[in-house]
Amino acid sequence: MTLSLALDTMGGDHGPDEIIPAAFFALENHHDIELLLVGPKTALDKIIAGQSSAHASRAKVVNALDVIEMDESPSSALRSKKRSSMRVAVEQVKEGRAQACVSAGNTGALMAISKYVLKMLPGIDRPAICTTIPGIDGHTHILDLGANVDSNAEQLFQFAVMGSELTSAVENISSPKIGLLNVGAEENKGNDRVKQAALLLSDSHLNYIGFVEGNDIYSGKADVIVCDGFVGNIVLKASEGLAEFFTHHTTAEFRKTMYGKLVATVSLPILKNIRRKTDPRRYNGASLLGLRGIVVKSHGSADKVSFAHAIEEALLEVKKNIPARIASRLEELLSKD
Amino acid sequence: MTLSLALDTMGGDHGPDEIIPAAFFALENHHDIELLLVGPKTALDKIIAGQSSAHASRAKVVNALDVIEMDESPSSALRSKKRSSMRVAVEQVKEGRAQACVSAGNTGALMAISKYVLKMLPGIDRPAICTTIPGIDGHTHILDLGANVDSNAEQLFQFAVMGSELTSAVENISSPKIGLLNVGAEENKGNDRVKQAALLLSDSHLNYIGFVEGNDIYSGKADVIVCDGFVGNIVLKASEGLAEFFTHHTTAEFRKTMYGKLVATVSLPILKNIRRKTDPRRYNGASLLGLRGIVVKSHGSADKVSFAHAIEEALLEVKKNIPARIASRLEELLSKD
Repeated sequence: MTLSLALDTMGGDHGPDEIIPAAFFALENHHDIELLLVGPKTALDKIIAGQSSAHASRAKVVNALDVIEMDESPSSALRSKKRSSMRVAVEQVKEGRAQACVSAGNTGALMAISKYVLKMLPGIDRPAICTTIPGIDGHTHILDLGANVDSNAEQLFQFAVMGSELTSAVENISSPKIGLLNVGAEENKGNDRVKQAALLLSDSHLNYIGFVEGNDIYSGKADVIVCDGFVGNIVLKASEGLAEFFTHHTTAEFRKTMYGKLVATVSLPILKNIRRKTDPRRYNGASLLGLRGIVVKSHGSADKVSFAHAIEEALLEVKKNIPARIASRLEELLSKD
Repeated sequence: MTLSLALDTMGGDHGPDEIIPAAFFALENHHDIELLLVGPKTALDKIIAGQSSAHASRAKVVNALDVIEMDESPSSALRSKKRSSMRVAVEQVKEGRAQACVSAGNTGALMAISKYVLKMLPGIDRPAICTTIPGIDGHTHILDLGANVDSNAEQLFQFAVMGSELTSAVENISSPKIGLLNVGAEENKGNDRVKQAALLLSDSHLNYIGFVEGNDIYSGKADVIVCDGFVGNIVLKASEGLAEFFTHHTTAEFRKTMYGKLVATVSLPILKNIRRKTDPRRYNGASLLGLRGIVVKSHGSADKVSFAHAIEEALLEVKKNIPARIASRLEELLSKD
């Protein structure tokens, strides 16, 4: 069966200039897929004509003239941009023409549109954004990263169920270790919502390992880390800021002296390897979980290679049938009540 | 006038083995101070006898036999350890024998004891922990880092007042730029408490620059960043985790090949410089603000150099008279209501 993915070509900082090459890269790697390139047909046709590829027949343009700006409010995007590339891309999933959608656009708008068009799975109050973070020992799936700013204990529990199912499927782990992000590992630590969520998790059949702290995000101690979107968003952006800070000082130190410049030259391949391994975006492609369909959010600044990762993530979720797995796990949990 | 500081010698991972040498280092650098070394007299006398210093006459042991464990609950520490080194050190400040206290011990216990013994300044509901974080462009004071886990808008506002006064005094900035940590820079972003705190800050005479995001912590965009302790604690620990992760991968990459080992040797001084500049603990010494007295918390894993930094921070706060400055600013703000 040919899998079909819809790409919002107008999202992100670079738009079709990086997204179309990423699409053709994916077509070359996967002969069993077709891609619906959603955006302004005339402009896209021109960019596609510039791609010398034997796979152009599997790239289909779906015309959509509106563009949602990166700083547009979700409600304005939802109300007044009914023919935006993002909306039309999500609709391809709703209408069964695509099995997943990938966008590098405005996160709030993508969340609002996906929720409105695709609807939530039964038993899930709100969607959550989940991404993979590299760690010292393996890597960790963390959610929510900002879909919500005030989640209660029940919602944190739902995030744990969704994160557990996603991780189990994509990592082939039968029972992923779930940690709840808190200010300390002891039971009496934290605010009411994490304490209540801990009780729900302890009572469940999930592999709950207890509270984890901020430093555990990068240790690989848990397979899944659950937190409120307010905390998750700030932690993820702080990590990006700290990575930039390291890069800034590394570059500055090597540039400072002639000796430094010489050393930089000989250590270049090693420094490149370090940067590649420690780039928090090397697993680009965050999942919007809890929807009746697969939507993957790429980082807004994603280049070709990075956006291609997001396409891979979407493909993997299609092959693993993530929404159905989450729905069936929830049904199982709810029927036990 | 001779300034006097009380040091809890039994706090932290290393106790007196690192804290006593740090104390003597501070005595050598500051001829106008004396240090009250609080802990078990017999053991401390032995360690002090091993320090060949002309300054031993300015180091006075204050006997205290109990020790608060790093994982002890604040309430147990408060109730059952009335002669602990931490409690006695804080009491030196209360009784006017010291102008400040420094401890590397259990943060929750230090907070509870300081609040109980010293009491809060009028107009402040709860203490806040404030530390300095190095940035690409200068550095930033951030609070609260975990004294509280559920601060409301009024409390966030009080943190802003305290952070502004501290930063103004120690950095000699007349009107420090205050940012409120949030998931986006737009006014409609965030949870209710940050939106309400933003209104209070906008209405005040503080130099409020609006919402800042996680990545701004390391950019130096704001002089003071205000957040709830739940978020602040997790962000700070995540940064420590990410720094460890970078170090781990840097070391691993350089060790992988003979070529890497050679390059590591020539780049050693540069790598050391980078590590020094990017170490989030290089400004060790977090202030417990809002109390009627100066209490500085050192990182638990602090070594001699690092603990000496915390002593420097305490000295600076004594010289700048931080609690009195905060109290007078609050009185000014409250009288305007």
